[in-house]
Order: sequence, then C-alpha cells, then structure tokens
Amino acid sequence: MLSKQSHFPAATMSPPSMAAVFDKHGPIDTVIRLIEIPPVEISEKDVCVKMLAAPINPADINIIEGVYPTRVILPTVGGGEGVGEIYSVGSAVKTLSPGDLVIRSPYIPGSWQTYMVEEESLWHKIHEDTPVEFAATVSVNPVSALRMLNEFVTLKPGDSIVQNGATSIVGQCVIQLARLYGIHSINIIRDNPGSNEVKEKLIELGADKVFTESELNVQHIKMLLGDTPQPILGLNCVGGNSATLVVKFLKRGGTMVTYGGMSKEPVTISTSNFIFKDITLKGFWLQEWKLDKTKYRDWIDSLLRLVRAGKLKYEFDAVHFEEFHTALEKAMGKHGSQRKQILIF
Amino acid sequence: MLSKQSHFPAATMSPPSMAAVFDKHGPIDTVIRLIEIPPVEISEKDVCVKMLAAPINPADINIIEGVYPTRVILPTVGGGEGVGEIYSVGSAVKTLSPGDLVIRSPYIPGSWQTYMVEEESLWHKIHEDTPVEFAATVSVNPVSALRMLNEFVTLKPGDSIVQNGATSIVGQCVIQLARLYGIHSINIIRDNPGSNEVKEKLIELGADKVFTESELNVQHIKMLLGDTPQPILGLNCVGGNSATLVVKFLKRGGTMVTYGGMSKEPVTISTSNFIFKDITLKGFWLQEWKLDKTKYRDWIDSLLRLVRAGKLKYEFDAVHFEEFHTALEKAMGKHGSQRKQILIF
Repeated sequence: MLSKQSHFPAATMSPPSMAAVFDKHGPIDTVIRLIEIPPVEISEKDVCVKMLAAPINPADINIIEGVYPTRVILPTVGGGEGVGEIYSVGSAVKTLSPGDLVIRSPYIPGSWQTYMVEEESLWHKIHEDTPVEFAATVSVNPVSALRMLNEFVTLKPGDSIVQNGATSIVGQCVIQLARLYGIHSINIIRDNPGSNEVKEKLIELGADKVFTESELNVQHIKMLLGDTPQPILGLNCVGGNSATLVVKFLKRGGTMVTYGGMSKEPVTISTSNFIFKDITLKGFWLQEWKLDKTKYRDWIDSLLRLVRAGKLKYEFDAVHFEEFHTALEKAMGKHGSQRKQILIF
Repeated sequence: MLSKQSHFPAATMSPPSMAAVFDKHGPIDTVIRLIEIPPVEISEKDVCVKMLAAPINPADINIIEGVYPTRVILPTVGGGEGVGEIYSVGSAVKTLSPGDLVIRSPYIPGSWQTYMVEEESLWHKIHEDTPVEFAATVSVNPVSALRMLNEFVTLKPGDSIVQNGATSIVGQCVIQLARLYGIHSINIIRDNPGSNEVKEKLIELGADKVFTESELNVQHIKMLLGDTPQPILGLNCVGGNSATLVVKFLKRGGTMVTYGGMSKEPVTISTSNFIFKDITLKGFWLQEWKLDKTKYRDWIDSLLRLVRAGKLKYEFDAVHFEEFHTALEKAMGKHGSQRKQILIF
C-alpha cells in the first residue's frame, strides 16, 4: 500500500496539463502545438498552480522562432508570464496555500499551460482582488514602463518625456505613470485611418500631446510643444524615422532609451546630435531573472495597487486557450494591428 | 607731451598685425583674406603676444563657413588655438613677462594673426622648451584624446579600446596615451593604397591592432582580436559604416563616443545592439570655454610634459603664414588626405 501510494499518491501529483509545446525552433505556427502533458510530481517544496491567464508577448514568439538571445532547452512549453491560483502545495511549503493568487516571478518559462508545478520561491502571491488580465501582464510591459521612467534620468514634476509606439501597453503605462508623477508626455503614433480616435483615447489616459509621424514633418518641431517643456527622456520601441523624431524632440543633453524595434529599421542619428546636442542613446532590456527579486516584486505590487485603484489600465483581448492559434496569429500581426492577446485557461 | 604720449605711447600699443580676417560667412576661400590690422591699445591688464604657430582645425573652417553652432561677431580674425611669445605686458600684469611662451586658454577666437592683445588671464604660460608646433596644437586634439579616455568609462590596465579615424591627431594621441596607460588599442583605418605603411606607423606608435574597413567585412569580428580583450570603449569620428564597425567590436555594455563625422554619414545602430548588447552611444565636444580652467591647464601641462619627454608625437605640416591659402586648401582636403596644417608666423 505504502509503495503504491508513493508511486501514485493523489496529493503529490499534478493534474494532467493542456500545454502549448514546441520541440524545435522555426515559424511559430508550424512548430507549436497544444498537447496534454501527463501529471508531474509535486515535491515537498513545490507549488502546483492552476493557470488562469497568460499573455502572448513578442519575446515569447521570438523565443519559439529561435531569434531571441535567450535560449531554452527543447522540448518545452511556450509563454513567459502569467497568473494562476494555487491548486496544491508540497508538505514543506510555508508561505503559500491553496486558493492564493500567484504570478510567476522571477521569470520562468512555460506559462501557456493549464497546470504548472514550480518551487515555492518562484511564485509571488498577489492581492486576491486583482483582475487576472492585469495580473497576467504586469511583470513585463508595465514594469518596463516603470523602470524606464526611473532608471535613466532623474525626472521631476513639470519635466517632459517623449515616446513613440504610444499605443502599446508600455506606451499606455508610460502615459499614466508620467501623469501620476506630474510629468508631461509627448506621444508619437503611426499614421492610421483611426488616428483621431487614438489621440482622444491617449489624451483621456493622460497624454499631454499626441502627434502622428506625418504631423512631425516640420522644420521646427519645438514649435509644436507650446508651453510643454522639451523632454529630457525619450522612449523608442519603433526605430527608423520614428526614433529620429523622438531625438528631434529631445532637449540638449537628453537621453533616448530603445526597448523595441517594431519597424525593423535601425536607429539612425546624425553626428551633430551627439556632438552639439549631447544626446545619449541607451537600451533597455527587462532581464527580470537578473533583477533583485525583492525590488522586482515591490514594483509589481505597486503597479497592481494602481490597477486596483483604477489608476492604471490598458486594453487587451481575452481569448480562451482553445483559440490559441487564432490568438497567436493576431499577436503576430497577421490580421493588422491588434491589442495584447491574453489567453484565459 | 603727456597728452601726445597717452595717444601714441610706444609701450601701450601693439605692433600692426597681419591677420586672416572674414567679415561674412560663406565658402571659406571667398570670404577670408589676409590684411594688416592697425595697432591696438594694450591696457594695464593686457598682454601682447607675438604669435608663433597656429593650426587650421576643422572647427575653424566650419565657424567661417557659418555651419558651426558657436557664433562669432563679424568681422573677426579666424583660428581657434595657437602659441606665441609675449611681446609686452600692461603695467598691472603680475604673472607673465616678455619672452614667456604662452598658449591661448581657455579658448579665445582669432589665432591667425601675427600679434594678439588679450587679458592676462586668457594666456597660459608653458615650459620654454616645448616645441611650438605641439604647443600650438595641444589644446584641442590631444586634450580631446585625453578626456575621451577618461570621462566615459573607467579603463584599467589590460582593457581595450577601439577607434576609427586612427590616423588623425586625436587618433594618434589615443594610441600613445592608451599604450602609456597599459590599454590595448584596436584601430580602424580607411582602405587606401598606402594602408600597409599606415599600419606600420600606427603600430610603431603603440597600436595593438590596425584593420582597414574592408578587412572587417567578416561575420565574426571578435575572431580578429586574438588575445586582445573586446573593447569597452569605442571612439568614432567617421560615422556611417565605420561607426557600425566600432560598435561591432564593442563588448556587451560598451560605450561608443562620437566626436566627429568625417564621412558626413550618420551613425546607424540596430535595435538589438541597444537591447541585447546594452550599447550606450554618447557624444563628445570639447567646449573648453565651459571647462574648469585649472583642470584644463593641468591637462595641457601633462600632455606637453609627455611631448617634451618624447612620449607623445604626431605628424603635421608646418607652413609659413604667407602660404595661408594653400594651407587652407590642404586643410579642407582639396588635395586629398593631408596632415594637420600648422601656420608659422
């Protein structure tokens, strides 16, 4: 009996998990598939979590395609962030209990599955009233917005920042956090048929100025700012002409931080911007697995407090895990520009 | 008698000066001309200096053309740095005497003339044994080399730096100063017929590695370094592909400093260099008139000590002031790549 129990004890094995798995790198729709993974053992320090929601981030796609600098051991489960509810805990687990809402932090791969088993220290308990879609997406994009506003230049109330890609989740968070700090945000968006509606939405979120790229084809870009001071920090997730426009807005001595390259074009900056305008260019990569865990969890908690207080929000599409392949196509931009796809399990 | 003396006292007026003057901006060879300037008054705090040597720097040309951000009041005398011997001093001058060798520091415009009158505090006395060609050129290019090796990253013996435009005076100083600090220098030069000779010269100066741009058209640039560690600092005075090559050599987390743009092409850097390689790009402009005067003079003295000790040297063409227009054409590159032109008065 004892021997049989140690092989098949109900409480020490996870339920079977439905998972989005890939066993080689390549075009994502050809290499990833939904399969059922058999139960895994829950050791005494492990926590088994029933996943509730997980987003599809660009980095998740790049990792599967094999074009991301971080390598994974194959075969593996896709997905990089997410939230779940604790299903069961090992006998030595002290700080977490079944029913707790937890997010994966620091980063552990494999969020696109219905049940996950990982060590206690890798799960961060969050407030039970947190909406799962925000909990699932807080640890990459909103944390990036928070850190980029704090790590590169010292901003004080009344200062300005400028960003492109302002409609992204990072962009929306930057607008709202800047507004909470008393900082003006100047926002650059693409020239799309619906750009007037986009402008209204961003201004409602707290943006001071919103321009389409074509509106910035002017000789004296400063004239467009009115009373808003020239920004000392620029954030670039597009590259190409859009990055050049960010630098054009910057004040002498300003810094542009690149955290993405949606246009797939490089950043091109004239020599005189470096020499005479004293512009600094830097990059930002949220390598959460290298960050101080305590600080990282503090940032997450502070952002989720803002979410629960209604002071931080962004748009997304919640899609059931069964529609994974459709969500993936949308996340890859195959149906035009789309909101963040969040898988609901 | 007294009245007459106060109008024409021999000791309180400078000799007439032959000067390269411009009264409007434009193509330099059409706007600048050599004229004789009448004697000027030497007030009690002034020093009259017989100029001995002054270089033609790119910034001097740009200022005359009107394409430099620093504006001058017209008409004025060209030239930005130089050395001279004191001809006479005003009655209240305490620290300088006739016969002293002095350089103009901090920056004051108007070095292309045979006699200059400026306040005592603007002249810096240097050791009488200093060769005038080096004294005339120390305060811009060698000081830039010194500051760029010290202001951006903390270099320690055994580290590496990479630079393009390695044959310029800044480039030659960087090689020699790096060698004195125990730092490896990796040098990029243009593809010219004489590139093998250039390589030998730079290696003789102390360069560790010298590559032509075309030699760097390889997939794995790191392989070319052998035992030399990847550089943490890059210096760029060319732009375009040559700047991209500097970044390719840089170690993760490295910094490239742009201080010139000889190719007239901008700096183009991929998004992944910012995000995954954590590259920082900065600019350097030696605005000496904004620098701490004491420190600036200390840097000059330390460099001239190296010159006198035979540890810092570079090539130049000494040309008589009467051949000003020929020297100017050479300095503008109208006769192909040339050494620094130093006017001798």
